[in-house]
Amino acid sequence: MSSILRVFGVDPGLQATGWALVAQEGQRFEARWGLIKPKRSGSVEQRLGELMEGLSTAIRSQRPHVVAVERPFVKEDVRAAMALGQAQAAAFIAAARHGLEVAEYAPREIKHRVAGDGGAEKAAMAQLLYMELALPELPEPSDAADALAVAYCHLLSQRLAMTAAPQP
Amino acid sequence: MSSILRVFGVDPGLQATGWALVAQEGQRFEARWGLIKPKRSGSVEQRLGELMEGLSTAIRSQRPHVVAVERPFVKEDVRAAMALGQAQAAAFIAAARHGLEVAEYAPREIKHRVAGDGGAEKAAMAQLLYMELALPELPEPSDAADALAVAYCHLLSQRLAMTAAPQP
Repeated sequence: MSSILRVFGVDPGLQATGWALVAQEGQRFEARWGLIKPKRSGSVEQRLGELMEGLSTAIRSQRPHVVAVERPFVKEDVRAAMALGQAQAAAFIAAARHGLEVAEYAPREIKHRVAGDGGAEKAAMAQLLYMELALPELPEPSDAADALAVAYCHLLSQRLAMTAAPQP
Repeated sequence: MSSILRVFGVDPGLQATGWALVAQEGQRFEARWGLIKPKRSGSVEQRLGELMEGLSTAIRSQRPHVVAVERPFVKEDVRAAMALGQAQAAAFIAAARHGLEVAEYAPREIKHRVAGDGGAEKAAMAQLLYMELALPELPEPSDAADALAVAYCHLLSQRLAMTAAPQP
């Protein structure tokens, strides 16, 4: 009997945060996803509150075993880095409230694991996720697609970890 | 009859987050403060969860009208900026959960308003807070002292705003 692993992926952003649940049982996948868009008129604290509450609700209903979060890439912009850190924290805190661990993945690592190419285009990533996860529809190359990608990336990294582990 | 304004100040940090409640009624001040230190062994998500829950508990018991948060200054270090944004977010989310607004102040602005000198030393700031707020003891120049400073800074900025407002 194969066990089920349920991964909750998050692509954090203050404007919109994508989430996805990818469940794997043997070679079968099941996925669903959504987008949390805080009110545009809201202050930073209101947006972060909405993101944390929205992610908490999704985690409660999707019952994942672990949370995988995209670590945003910022080159030099300190202000942007602080804002992205804030959005990430909403996901971290939602996970902590449910006693779940968080695994972080950089964008290049996600693309590399999913597409075998750290520089893969968004459209190619969406196409791959559509096929590999047998999704009912092609995901829009959006924050939700990125959330699917980071969840699938975590499953792939676990699979490698299991393959590499010594057999009993 | 003068009204009371209760300000909850926060100096956010992943290692330690200081908080302070400063209440003003006319020319009388009342202050208390504390430090939240997440478990050192904890992951980032556990620390952020502890900070958010700890600040939430303090806000619930101190019943402030508004939250004032120090906006950490980071020059070039993108990683440090992201971590500080995460710690700030714990304060923002705790405020949002209680329906409170957040006012942000940069370190130089806090020093300028409290000491009249944007480059004031920490020891001088602690001495000023001790006298101005009639504290029972000299606060250690720590995160908690910085939380007292940002709360007092908010009260001073409100006083200016009230003075500047047109009279009815």
